[in-house]
Amino acid sequence: MKTKVITISREFGSGGRTIGKLLAKDLNWKFYDKELVNKISEQSNFAKDFIEKRGEYASSKSEFLYSLLENFGTTNGGQSINDKLYITQANIIKELAQEGHCIIVGRCANHILRPRDDVFNIFIHADDEFKSQRIVRLYGETEKTAISRLKDKDRRRAVYYKYYTGEKWGQIDNYDLALNSGKIGIDACVDLIARLIKNI
Amino acid sequence: MKTKVITISREFGSGGRTIGKLLAKDLNWKFYDKELVNKISEQSNFAKDFIEKRGEYASSKSEFLYSLLENFGTTNGGQSINDKLYITQANIIKELAQEGHCIIVGRCANHILRPRDDVFNIFIHADDEFKSQRIVRLYGETEKTAISRLKDKDRRRAVYYKYYTGEKWGQIDNYDLALNSGKIGIDACVDLIARLIKNI
Repeated sequence: MKTKVITISREFGSGGRTIGKLLAKDLNWKFYDKELVNKISEQSNFAKDFIEKRGEYASSKSEFLYSLLENFGTTNGGQSINDKLYITQANIIKELAQEGHCIIVGRCANHILRPRDDVFNIFIHADDEFKSQRIVRLYGETEKTAISRLKDKDRRRAVYYKYYTGEKWGQIDNYDLALNSGKIGIDACVDLIARLIKNI
Repeated sequence: MKTKVITISREFGSGGRTIGKLLAKDLNWKFYDKELVNKISEQSNFAKDFIEKRGEYASSKSEFLYSLLENFGTTNGGQSINDKLYITQANIIKELAQEGHCIIVGRCANHILRPRDDVFNIFIHADDEFKSQRIVRLYGETEKTAISRLKDKDRRRAVYYKYYTGEKWGQIDNYDLALNSGKIGIDACVDLIARLIKNI
């Protein structure tokens, strides 16, 4: 098997995005995170802001469930605006994978690309202390504590993932490799993955 | 952090034990799997056969639950023979970790050694096809299908782990590294871990 696509799922604050970016540089592959948002926006009528907010996160548990309830009795085949965004981005993710040699962050890409046998799925996680320090350093302080910010974001990712894939987010056997970036270190994670991908 | 102890948790048939053994050779560390059974047997009155069968597995869901119920009303402080075995092996695992430079397979070692900061926890898993082929090759055919054999064994490991740790077996953030040995390959897993441990 020659890996042509890497998907990275990550806990908020774990450095998964950074690892993906550095890895793409090392492998000389394309990198899709914010770049994917741009692509989806170009190929659809969705605003970038909407794609960023709703393409990977349930807005909040109650609001998300409410948006599902809204669809009962609609005449658009039961598709909400969230569903349309999911389908649009799933199609774009499939097209990008077809082109190959790319790294895709988040957005259920590991699930969407499951039929392919050239995809390598990675999950990055870390302990709360590492993630808290990291998000305060990168994104600054807010009214909410760092812990509650990261718990809230991961919870909304998990609700979104569960709704669209039927699976539990972070289920160990959905990933070929899972790394604790806090223990291993960001750079060591990049080295390890790059070496592995070059050899399998 | 200099890692002094590696714990390996593994799905049945994934090659986790083999990876541990090869890794111990590579690092020139001690390896405890069956060797741990011998040690527990030497330091207690438990027979090897009993330690192998009950030191990591619920015998079956109903039988295990029954053995718990048996303890109501006992005068030995509520400790069943299974509890005594757990406590004995937990103490031996702690002693071995204190000596350092060792690899311990299974037996809730990742949970038991959590207070230490020199432990690196690994989980090895693989897809059912890889595991099935492997267990038939290594252990031969039986009346039961390979799939049902591996599901049964992992289910009993999970029940045991849950009972003694209160946690879900295979929960991604309980491990610093999780590998799909079917996708990556046994030897590549060994190389990757050895390199990582030598560098962190």
